[in-house]
Amino acid sequence: MEKLVVQKYGGTSVGSIDRIKAVAKKIIDTKKSGYDLVVVVSAMGKTTDELLSMAYDLNEKPSNRELDQLLATGEQISISLLAMALESQGYNAISLTGPQCGILTDPIHKKARISNINPQRLLSELEQDKIVIVAGFQGINEISDVTTLGRGGSDTTAVAIAAALQALRCEIYTDVEGVFTADPRKVENAKLIPKISYDEVLELASLGAQVLHPRSIELARRFNVPLMVKSSFKNSNGTEIMEVDTMENVSVRGVSLDDNIAKISILEVPDKPGIAFRIFSELAKNHVHVDMILQNVNRNSVNDISFTVSQDDFKDAVKICQDIGFEIGAQKVIYDQGVAKLSVVGTGIGGSAEIASKYFETLYNLGINIQMISTSEIKISCIIDKALSEEAMKALHDAMGL
Amino acid sequence: MEKLVVQKYGGTSVGSIDRIKAVAKKIIDTKKSGYDLVVVVSAMGKTTDELLSMAYDLNEKPSNRELDQLLATGEQISISLLAMALESQGYNAISLTGPQCGILTDPIHKKARISNINPQRLLSELEQDKIVIVAGFQGINEISDVTTLGRGGSDTTAVAIAAALQALRCEIYTDVEGVFTADPRKVENAKLIPKISYDEVLELASLGAQVLHPRSIELARRFNVPLMVKSSFKNSNGTEIMEVDTMENVSVRGVSLDDNIAKISILEVPDKPGIAFRIFSELAKNHVHVDMILQNVNRNSVNDISFTVSQDDFKDAVKICQDIGFEIGAQKVIYDQGVAKLSVVGTGIGGSAEIASKYFETLYNLGINIQMISTSEIKISCIIDKALSEEAMKALHDAMGL
Repeated sequence: MEKLVVQKYGGTSVGSIDRIKAVAKKIIDTKKSGYDLVVVVSAMGKTTDELLSMAYDLNEKPSNRELDQLLATGEQISISLLAMALESQGYNAISLTGPQCGILTDPIHKKARISNINPQRLLSELEQDKIVIVAGFQGINEISDVTTLGRGGSDTTAVAIAAALQALRCEIYTDVEGVFTADPRKVENAKLIPKISYDEVLELASLGAQVLHPRSIELARRFNVPLMVKSSFKNSNGTEIMEVDTMENVSVRGVSLDDNIAKISILEVPDKPGIAFRIFSELAKNHVHVDMILQNVNRNSVNDISFTVSQDDFKDAVKICQDIGFEIGAQKVIYDQGVAKLSVVGTGIGGSAEIASKYFETLYNLGINIQMISTSEIKISCIIDKALSEEAMKALHDAMGL
Repeated sequence: MEKLVVQKYGGTSVGSIDRIKAVAKKIIDTKKSGYDLVVVVSAMGKTTDELLSMAYDLNEKPSNRELDQLLATGEQISISLLAMALESQGYNAISLTGPQCGILTDPIHKKARISNINPQRLLSELEQDKIVIVAGFQGINEISDVTTLGRGGSDTTAVAIAAALQALRCEIYTDVEGVFTADPRKVENAKLIPKISYDEVLELASLGAQVLHPRSIELARRFNVPLMVKSSFKNSNGTEIMEVDTMENVSVRGVSLDDNIAKISILEVPDKPGIAFRIFSELAKNHVHVDMILQNVNRNSVNDISFTVSQDDFKDAVKICQDIGFEIGAQKVIYDQGVAKLSVVGTGIGGSAEIASKYFETLYNLGINIQMISTSEIKISCIIDKALSEEAMKALHDAMGL
C-alpha cells in the first residue's frame, strides 16, 4: 500500500497517560500528512512487571501458556487506551489484539515465531480510513491460544505487518535517537548515522549496540521493508535502514563494544578428530551460544581451545566444559570474565587491509594486547582487556574518522 | 455431563493474591470430591475501576467498543492467575477468555447478550481432566471483537455454560451466605432459605434483595439449571434455587424492602381514552421503568395517576411528566421521595386471603398507611412511608412466622 506507514512505540513511549497523549499527537501529525497508519504498541512501562510479580506470588514456575494469557493483557490495555486518546481528538481509530489482527504463530509459548499474517481485518479497517492500533508482542496459535513473541517481539510485529501490507516504511520509535557511530553514553563525539544497510545494523546489534533486536532487522531485510529508527521524545530524523545500492565502497559505519561477555579456555585438549565437535555440539545442545573461537595448536599433540560466550550463559558453559573436559582427557578449564569485544563495522571492511591495520595500530599505540580476532565481510572484532576497553573504543572512534 | 459442576466467583472473592489462593483451595476440594469443574471468574476487585479511571483521563466519552476491549483484560488477568494458583498445587488447569471459550454474543458492546455457546474447546479441555477457568462477563461478536455482558454478566456466563454443558448444577459464590427471609443487615432474626423456586427468587431479586441478577435467574429457569448461592468466605450450605415440584401449598419465603424508589403523581388528568397510554409510552420511550401504578377516579371527569420509579430514573421521570402533563391539560405533577416498597414473597401467596389480611393487619397495628398495593401469584407489595419501613419489615417478618 503506497500511502501506508507502520509505526511502533515501545513501553516507555506509552508509559503514562501523558505519554499516551504525546504519542497520539505524533500519530495525528503523520495522519494529517496524508498517510494511512497502522500503529504497533507495547505494554505500558511497568504493567508487565506488576503482572509478573502477581504471577510469581501464586506460582514459582507458572506454565508458559498461562504466562502468555496473563502478559497479553498488557498490550491490550495500551492499545485500547491509545485508541481512546485518538477518538477524543476526533480521529477514527480501532484497537486490535494480536489474535484479532490475524497474527498467526507457531505453538511455542513465550517465544513464538510469526508463521503468517491474515491481513483481512487490517485491510477492512484501513479501507474505512481508521487508524489501526495493534498489540505488539502477541499472536494466536492454531488452537486460538494467545502466544507472545519473546525478545524484540513488538519490533517484529511492526516489521511483519509492514511486510504483509507492503507498507511504504516501518518507523520504530524508541528512547534513543537512532543508530550512532558508537554508544553516545560512552563516546562523546559519537554521531547519528542517517543511513545504514541491514547487514551493518545487524552486525552493530549483535555486537551490543542494540537499538533494534536482530530478529526484526532480519525480517525487514528478508522482505525488504525500509526501516526508520527515531526518538519518541525528540523531533529528529533518526536512522534509515535499507538495502544499500553498492557494496564496493569501503565505509566505516561505527564502533561498538560488548562487555557482557566472558572467555573460557579448555587447556591441553588431545588432538584427535571430532574432539572440537564434541565440545561445541554439547554446548549447542544446552542452548549456550558460542561467539568467537580460537584454537592454538601446541606441540605434543595437544591443543588449547578458547571461546567467548555471553555472561548470561557463562555459568552453564563452564560447567559443561568441566564435565566434557574431564571425559576427553583435557588438562583443565580456565576462564576470564574481564574481557570485552571491540568491533568496527562497515561495508567492505572485511576485505580492507587498511582498516584492519589502522585498528591494530590503534590498540598497539595504547599498549593493549589482542587476545582473539574475528572478521567478516563487514566487521573486525577483537577480544581485549575489559578495563581498557572504553579508552580503546574512544581512540578507535577517532582513528576511524567518525 | 453428570459429574460437571460450574462454579462462579465474583470480584471480591478473587480481590487479592490471598483470596485467589483461598478460591483455589475451594476448587480443589470440589475436584477431590470427584467432580469435573468449570470455574467462572470476575475481574479482581479494583482492576475495573483502575482501568476506567485511565480511560476517562484520556477520553470523556470513550467508545463502547474500546471500553470492552479494555475492560475484558480484567477477567483475563484473574483467570490466568487462578489457573497458575491451581497449577502450583499440582492440578491441571487452563484459563479461557470468553472468545476462547466460544461465548458468542450479539454486537451490542457493554451490554451484549449471549446468542450461543460453542462448547467444543470446553469439552476438549474437560476430557483431558483439566479444571477449566473461564472469564466471566465477556464474549465475542461476529467480527471477533470482545463484548461485555453488562450487569450480572459473570453470573450469566456461569449459568449459560452450565446450560450448554448440561451441568449437574451451577454454584454462585458471593459475599453473602445465600438468600435470606429478609435482609440480615436489617432484620436480626432473618434466616437463610435452604430451598427456593426460580420465580420466588426472581421476585425477591426484583424487589431489592439482589443476591443474583434477575437475568441469570431467568436463564437458569429457562434451561432448568439448578442454582446454588453460597458464601465465598464461610462454609455453609447456602440456598438452592430450582423448579419447585408443587405450587399448591402456600409458603411464605421472605420479606423484602426496596427504599430506592420514588412516587410521582399527575393530578387531575382529563378522563379521555388514550391519556394513560400517552404518559406511559413516553416514559418507556425514555427508558424509564415504571413499577406500580395507581389510578384514582375522581368526580368531574378527571383522574389522579400515581406510579413509582427507581430513584435512578426519578429526575428524568419528573421532567417527562411535567412536559406531558402540560400538554394533556393535567393540573400539576407532585412527587414523594420518602416512600419504600415492602413485599412478602412466596409460592401461592397471591391467591391467599389469609396472608394478605395478616400483612395489612400488621401495618394497621403499627399505624402505617398503605399508599399503593400490588400483587402477583407469588408476592404482595405495599408502598408505605420510608421512615417507618424498617420497623414494618421487622414486624412483617415476625408476623409471617419466618
